[in-house]
Amino acid sequence: MTTSSAAPAVKPPMRDALVEAAFRLFLERGYDRTTVDDIVALAGVGRRSFFRYFPSKEDVVFPDHERCLADMTAFLAAGDGAEEPVARVCDAARLVLRMYAENPAFSVRRYRLTKQVPGLRAYELSVVRRYERALAGYLRERYAGRPDGTLRADVIAAAVVAAHNNALRSWLRSDGAGDADAAVDHALGCVRAAFAEPGRDAAVQPSVPPARGEDVVVVVARRDAPLWRVVRAVEAALGRP
Amino acid sequence: MTTSSAAPAVKPPMRDALVEAAFRLFLERGYDRTTVDDIVALAGVGRRSFFRYFPSKEDVVFPDHERCLADMTAFLAAGDGAEEPVARVCDAARLVLRMYAENPAFSVRRYRLTKQVPGLRAYELSVVRRYERALAGYLRERYAGRPDGTLRADVIAAAVVAAHNNALRSWLRSDGAGDADAAVDHALGCVRAAFAEPGRDAAVQPSVPPARGEDVVVVVARRDAPLWRVVRAVEAALGRP
Repeated sequence: MTTSSAAPAVKPPMRDALVEAAFRLFLERGYDRTTVDDIVALAGVGRRSFFRYFPSKEDVVFPDHERCLADMTAFLAAGDGAEEPVARVCDAARLVLRMYAENPAFSVRRYRLTKQVPGLRAYELSVVRRYERALAGYLRERYAGRPDGTLRADVIAAAVVAAHNNALRSWLRSDGAGDADAAVDHALGCVRAAFAEPGRDAAVQPSVPPARGEDVVVVVARRDAPLWRVVRAVEAALGRP
Repeated sequence: MTTSSAAPAVKPPMRDALVEAAFRLFLERGYDRTTVDDIVALAGVGRRSFFRYFPSKEDVVFPDHERCLADMTAFLAAGDGAEEPVARVCDAARLVLRMYAENPAFSVRRYRLTKQVPGLRAYELSVVRRYERALAGYLRERYAGRPDGTLRADVIAAAVVAAHNNALRSWLRSDGAGDADAAVDHALGCVRAAFAEPGRDAAVQPSVPPARGEDVVVVVARRDAPLWRVVRAVEAALGRP
């Protein structure tokens, strides 16, 4: 076989090659028994190349979180301040899902690896905490000056992260089968139902409680709304004329 | 001066002496530059005594979390299953506050130390996660078989932990001044308002939304409640006759 007329082999960028080599070794000999030297030897590059892309061996396991955190921060900063705040942080959380869903096989492989290595779980916790702080920081600004603004911001950020991760983990446990988007949308919808606020113009807004299957309705009303409007909203929520 | 007639000096238990020695050294020379050898030398005990009480240097910074986690687990297991689940996990979270409030000076000292040492923040994150998992585990059992049971459990556990920690951090930042119990009660009250469910017998239950200062009321009603009862609850919630 000659190669002269063949298209040149597409060489993955060095960063991808390092991730690929690392995961092959983690699978073969275990995370703890794999060194950075082993990884660079397999990838055919020098140690300095590794550390140009990844500050540590942990970072090669989560190669896209820094980019995703930067995307999330940029997304939150790009709003014009008119967005419903809870909806906005839910949309920001979806960026994390998109990163996982871009490469299901890799995400599932990493999920299994992380479950086995306490050090990686600790690393992941710290990343999750950074996402949560990014969301909470945005909400704190949006709720600035309100009573309990920081409390509300922190609680909603934690709830959004928990809902997102509940759906993400289910999808990862199913080996990436099923519709990750639909699962995360549903989970985030429950948080929005619990926390999102009526629009400025709406005096009354019926909503559904977190556990959708339940036979309960929730009505949120401005205290100064006329009683007849509240009653009408209750009737509508109860499905009565 | 003779000591024969004096009361014997009360010697703190060895565990407390190790914590005391550790914090004195952390303050004097910094956490990273203090070794376990330094600590045992100052406390006047051997290395084996240290490791009998603390698996690592990090653990001496958080000497009471294991006991608190055990207390929380026992408290959650001791219920008879009739308790309102959200109220129960809020009460469980108060055990953590109590641990901090038992010794405000120590808690404030540790808070400042933890802020300066990334390794300790990572340790603390892992502890917080263990509390959250204990609460979520209880709620998952209580919500077993319900639609979105695990989702609801995870979201509420995260919200309770975030609310608790928001209030706890405010108190620590104020150097332990102010009423920690009142702050945590208020924060947990907001979570209960968002998530706690009407009692089994109550067809209608008015409640307040998370941001208490806001001019909004929330009414939760069983879908099969008679309309007149819902309207009466709305009137009561709106403060009208």
